[in-house]
Amino acid sequence: MPVIYRLLLVISALFINVHTTMAQTSKRPREYGIRFGVLPTGPLNAITDVPGVRVGQVTINEGKSIRTGVTAIIAHDGNQFQQKSPAAIYIGNGFGKLMGYSQVEELGTLETPIILTNTLSVPTAADALIDYTLAQKGNEQVRSVNSIVGETNDGFLNDIRGRHVTKQHVLDAIRQAKTGAVEEGNVGAGTGTVCFGFKGGIGSSSRKLPASLGGYTVGVLVQTNFGGVLQIAGVPIGVELGRYDFKKNLDGSCMMVVLTDAPLDARNLKRLAKRAFMGLAQTGGIASNGSGDYVIAVSTAYHIPHETTSSFDELKLVRNDNVSPLFLAAIEATEEAIINSLFAAQTLSGDQGHQIDKLPIEKVVELLKKAGQAR
Amino acid sequence: MPVIYRLLLVISALFINVHTTMAQTSKRPREYGIRFGVLPTGPLNAITDVPGVRVGQVTINEGKSIRTGVTAIIAHDGNQFQQKSPAAIYIGNGFGKLMGYSQVEELGTLETPIILTNTLSVPTAADALIDYTLAQKGNEQVRSVNSIVGETNDGFLNDIRGRHVTKQHVLDAIRQAKTGAVEEGNVGAGTGTVCFGFKGGIGSSSRKLPASLGGYTVGVLVQTNFGGVLQIAGVPIGVELGRYDFKKNLDGSCMMVVLTDAPLDARNLKRLAKRAFMGLAQTGGIASNGSGDYVIAVSTAYHIPHETTSSFDELKLVRNDNVSPLFLAAIEATEEAIINSLFAAQTLSGDQGHQIDKLPIEKVVELLKKAGQAR
Amino acid sequence: MPVIYRLLLVISALFINVHTTMAQTSKRPREYGIRFGVLPTGPLNAITDVPGVRVGQVTINEGKSIRTGVTAIIAHDGNQFQQKSPAAIYIGNGFGKLMGYSQVEELGTLETPIILTNTLSVPTAADALIDYTLAQKGNEQVRSVNSIVGETNDGFLNDIRGRHVTKQHVLDAIRQAKTGAVEEGNVGAGTGTVCFGFKGGIGSSSRKLPASLGGYTVGVLVQTNFGGVLQIAGVPIGVELGRYDFKKNLDGSCMMVVLTDAPLDARNLKRLAKRAFMGLAQTGGIASNGSGDYVIAVSTAYHIPHETTSSFDELKLVRNDNVSPLFLAAIEATEEAIINSLFAAQTLSGDQGHQIDKLPIEKVVELLKKAGQAR
Amino acid sequence: MPVIYRLLLVISALFINVHTTMAQTSKRPREYGIRFGVLPTGPLNAITDVPGVRVGQVTINEGKSIRTGVTAIIAHDGNQFQQKSPAAIYIGNGFGKLMGYSQVEELGTLETPIILTNTLSVPTAADALIDYTLAQKGNEQVRSVNSIVGETNDGFLNDIRGRHVTKQHVLDAIRQAKTGAVEEGNVGAGTGTVCFGFKGGIGSSSRKLPASLGGYTVGVLVQTNFGGVLQIAGVPIGVELGRYDFKKNLDGSCMMVVLTDAPLDARNLKRLAKRAFMGLAQTGGIASNGSGDYVIAVSTAYHIPHETTSSFDELKLVRNDNVSPLFLAAIEATEEAIINSLFAAQTLSGDQGHQIDKLPIEKVVELLKKAGQAR
Repeated sequence: MPVIYRLLLVISALFINVHTTMAQTSKRPREYGIRFGVLPTGPLNAITDVPGVRVGQVTINEGKSIRTGVTAIIAHDGNQFQQKSPAAIYIGNGFGKLMGYSQVEELGTLETPIILTNTLSVPTAADALIDYTLAQKGNEQVRSVNSIVGETNDGFLNDIRGRHVTKQHVLDAIRQAKTGAVEEGNVGAGTGTVCFGFKGGIGSSSRKLPASLGGYTVGVLVQTNFGGVLQIAGVPIGVELGRYDFKKNLDGSCMMVVLTDAPLDARNLKRLAKRAFMGLAQTGGIASNGSGDYVIAVSTAYHIPHETTSSFDELKLVRNDNVSPLFLAAIEATEEAIINSLFAAQTLSGDQGHQIDKLPIEKVVELLKKAGQAR
Repeated sequence: MPVIYRLLLVISALFINVHTTMAQTSKRPREYGIRFGVLPTGPLNAITDVPGVRVGQVTINEGKSIRTGVTAIIAHDGNQFQQKSPAAIYIGNGFGKLMGYSQVEELGTLETPIILTNTLSVPTAADALIDYTLAQKGNEQVRSVNSIVGETNDGFLNDIRGRHVTKQHVLDAIRQAKTGAVEEGNVGAGTGTVCFGFKGGIGSSSRKLPASLGGYTVGVLVQTNFGGVLQIAGVPIGVELGRYDFKKNLDGSCMMVVLTDAPLDARNLKRLAKRAFMGLAQTGGIASNGSGDYVIAVSTAYHIPHETTSSFDELKLVRNDNVSPLFLAAIEATEEAIINSLFAAQTLSGDQGHQIDKLPIEKVVELLKKAGQAR
Repeated sequence: MPVIYRLLLVISALFINVHTTMAQTSKRPREYGIRFGVLPTGPLNAITDVPGVRVGQVTINEGKSIRTGVTAIIAHDGNQFQQKSPAAIYIGNGFGKLMGYSQVEELGTLETPIILTNTLSVPTAADALIDYTLAQKGNEQVRSVNSIVGETNDGFLNDIRGRHVTKQHVLDAIRQAKTGAVEEGNVGAGTGTVCFGFKGGIGSSSRKLPASLGGYTVGVLVQTNFGGVLQIAGVPIGVELGRYDFKKNLDGSCMMVVLTDAPLDARNLKRLAKRAFMGLAQTGGIASNGSGDYVIAVSTAYHIPHETTSSFDELKLVRNDNVSPLFLAAIEATEEAIINSLFAAQTLSGDQGHQIDKLPIEKVVELLKKAGQAR
Repeated sequence: MPVIYRLLLVISALFINVHTTMAQTSKRPREYGIRFGVLPTGPLNAITDVPGVRVGQVTINEGKSIRTGVTAIIAHDGNQFQQKSPAAIYIGNGFGKLMGYSQVEELGTLETPIILTNTLSVPTAADALIDYTLAQKGNEQVRSVNSIVGETNDGFLNDIRGRHVTKQHVLDAIRQAKTGAVEEGNVGAGTGTVCFGFKGGIGSSSRKLPASLGGYTVGVLVQTNFGGVLQIAGVPIGVELGRYDFKKNLDGSCMMVVLTDAPLDARNLKRLAKRAFMGLAQTGGIASNGSGDYVIAVSTAYHIPHETTSSFDELKLVRNDNVSPLFLAAIEATEEAIINSLFAAQTLSGDQGHQIDKLPIEKVVELLKKAGQAR
């Protein structure tokens, strides 16, 4: 490679890093006065408002073609395999490669961290989750691990065929997982994603129910890489900007992870997960043929021990009659998390010289103001 | 009963009839310049834009307590049992009594008209469908009929425990079924329903894809009786009017019937049905715990004969790659059909003196104008 | 009609009654030394071994063409609507008209008695369940009832098109429901059914786990009306008798009801239900295209109150790790219940002069002895 | 490691190889006169009786602890990604890690070879399938691959935590795939499996329908690693040998792959797949809590092109009315394939000194003879 070309690569990489750094300084939609729904958010307006939940992200942004990464969501501090979390997965549209579905469906539990990455790196991530689980203290006898790995396809900006995610990236994402604010936009598994024709990425949001409705928190994290006719807080932005398509560029996917401290079992978690898909609908997503839209919902309220001397699980669960406010919370937080991802994402160029522009935020906010939805 | 009271009853009944009649003269949302999505409607903007589809409705509005009815949707002119239609049912939230699900799921076909009515009259309607089918010429040997009956619970305005729907009402609805414009609002199965705290009812809408996308029509008919935080063309009407509730009055249900002339098989019809549920989400519906949200999707493009000398079905089906525009059409038409039902419905009082007001259309249109969504 | 013919009819009716009465005196397979599986039965070897479970049956055997009936299974003594039972429904093959599936799937509870009858009488039975529930003390405010009605098609022996089951028959079956031995064969919903080309009917069986495995009882009741290649305790009776068919006479259905006092939630009840379907497979059933094979599984171990001041359900459930013996119990009891129905059923003639012979028990026992499976 | 110990290892390895070699010479059950069902087999009585289907197996039998392998099943000779096969997956019991479920469920197609291996090597195999697909001529633009990998847990005999399967093993299995007889027993993915407490492995069988029923072939390949109460051709071998357990050693899994040249779509393939699970039930399998019982069913009768200029798929499909004989074929071939695996498998020792004995065939045949099921 000629020196001048290498130099360009370095500059380009710097440029990209600048972009990524800029992502940190974006204002979130709420700071523009945009409101999503009627329920209050948690203090961070992020999945990490659910006590104990941690998020770790590794951004792989190298050279001119590698734009991918890993996002890890961890339900609790303990040994996840030994202390399983009640869980369910809802499939909105199954054109995707999420790994781990059937065991969650059968047994109703989650036994690993949740990893999000790109489509062709699912096996790598699943392998890393097995490494992680086998190596964990207390798991010396474990011979079976149901890795949960979701994905979207970042192959427009990322050299996805190059399979640049390594097991170490995944293990790093798990290791770095922390409570506190969640970085949004071009980070982790959202590094190279595209949403409604604009740069997508990671987004997060939460809702906290009033005490009279249980006081529970519902937190959502999304990896946005899908299409449709963009709508923000109900305003038809895609139409106003003339940026939508019936047929092409619709495809892609959306991974949605929903955590809650409400004590739900797998059946009601599946219902909750379905409401996150309704939140996607609120943004104008259409779950197009080529979209892999999956929701993983997990309760942190209690654990199901892998082994115990008891023959019983003793549970205290929210009754069916009381789940509707949680449903609304999941819808609202998912809608907002998706829009958050778009506001945080930055223009990015990548593989084959492709470039995806960020959402034109000034113009968008102007449209929202006109509609009375931003101040 | 004192004479004066009886007189009031008569007057009240007249009053109600007036209301029902007034329903005919309501302007539909599009006439206010409200736009739903980006695809063009069919000429009637109704399910009957799908060639051959007929709708029949019987409104049972009697005395001060009976506010119910029957809506029949018929896929084609022939003998439905002998010439089955490819079909699928998607269950958004299964707190409901829809009859006929499992056979459609297993075999992928519809063999009766679709009947909508109230919750406690499902058996009556199913029985009528059996009568209808057994009596039809050519069905002399039929010994098994999979009746499709959907329902919502109109028990707030209607004396539902009285079970006032008869088999004759159902047979009348079938007999009267016709092509052409679909009556909306307080008619048929929508006579006594409540939606977002306002009077709901029957609504219908359609989309016609451009020729480049196949030129297919997707028509939707809904029976609206559900809750959430009402949103019209994205504008948060429920919030603006202060009319929503996290917990109470959320429940109810929504029946959605989707017809299309696109040649889809049961698998893709089920996917299409799921998109109607996304259209419900677009109106602010949350599929609350107590809601029975079902979508029945049917293709009129071809028939599966009950008996034939051939061992094969020869089909020419839209490829997976080409279904996304149909998905968008189903989302848009369902959203609009729901809002159409609210615009057409009229204030109604009924059982136990309950009254439900119609949507305050002037105020709503004003809010929509302010948001740039009506003119 | 000539007098002589009428006389024949009367005689024939008497003959049939004799047959039905004879059914009581049949020996059950175990009395021939036939063993099914390895687990012990409960004392009655019937679904009523599950404490509190009651069965009521009305046999409608009139004239030369009416051969049908109703079987009611009641999970507990209380008000079933107010004290719902955890429940699940598994669909083996959905060519059937079972009513009530989706609400059980969504909410995981049973709120009515379970009724079995013929295919075209499902609406009648569902209507009766609504009557029953609305009329029950304490249900004065009930406006929504999820009737559970299963069926098989007895239209070969029964004038099914005549719809001879009335609401009163259904209410009688409920009223007469009692604990104790369950009548098998040509009774109730099994009056006119056909199984493996022989006369089918109602059958029941149970298993009681040893205390070390929880000591739970699993009881099964079946309505047998299906086909395949009959196998009894593993012996290929259908082959030996040359009585099977790949194509015709395969169709029909099997309704299976599984009750247990093991504290399972809906998720594990659905798994249990699926094992009953495996029991059907053990008899040589193939779940042919035209078969409606459904399993309804219910736990009597606890109730979910319709209304309560608590926001929670407090449950003590068998852990996933401990359900396998229950699975085996469901398989074995279903297999045996099906064979019990065949041993109890009697030759019957009916509509259009059709006649179905009973299983040739002597010949069958001889074959079983030769195979070492009977003594 | 002391020299003597290394020597023992070598000897032990030789011993194992001898065993493996011996596997080749086993007689198949049919050669003992054992009959399974009523339908004739194909010429090879193997999955490869379906024209074009190939199987490749790599056995990894090294040292004293590595007892695992890979089995590849390839549906057709062409580029599987470009010419997808109609397919469906049925989940009998989902305690397993099969990869690729949801996309098959959504789109109804298979786009890679099917790989079977051990539980913890699923990601490795999936990664290899991506390598294979990306590298294939004509797939230069492919950016999304839905790998299908099934597994059972061979961790009793195999050092499964060591993850000894490499991508090369998987690619070798694909490369070596061939038509003709299928090696059974301790080979490929069946190298280290355990079934009903005896040595399990790979088994295969087929059925060929008479011309009057379509003349189709149904072929099955299984990887047997599950428990229950063993039954061979209906004879309760597990009971007779006193070798079964209600609670322990029940777990494990069974992967079943069903190929057919009958033109079925995904809906009817899923129904066919469910019948394979009924075949498992016929062997006394109970789908215990810890079992991962999956069936992948694929039709070779036609392909769905990945890209085409047509907007339509033109299909000529077997009608619902004609699928029952195929159902019976799938049941019988699965039952026989499982028993074939047990007859071919050889005693094997492995990790931690564990040893699993082969089925005591002489004793078994004697029992079968006594029951009139072998000659």
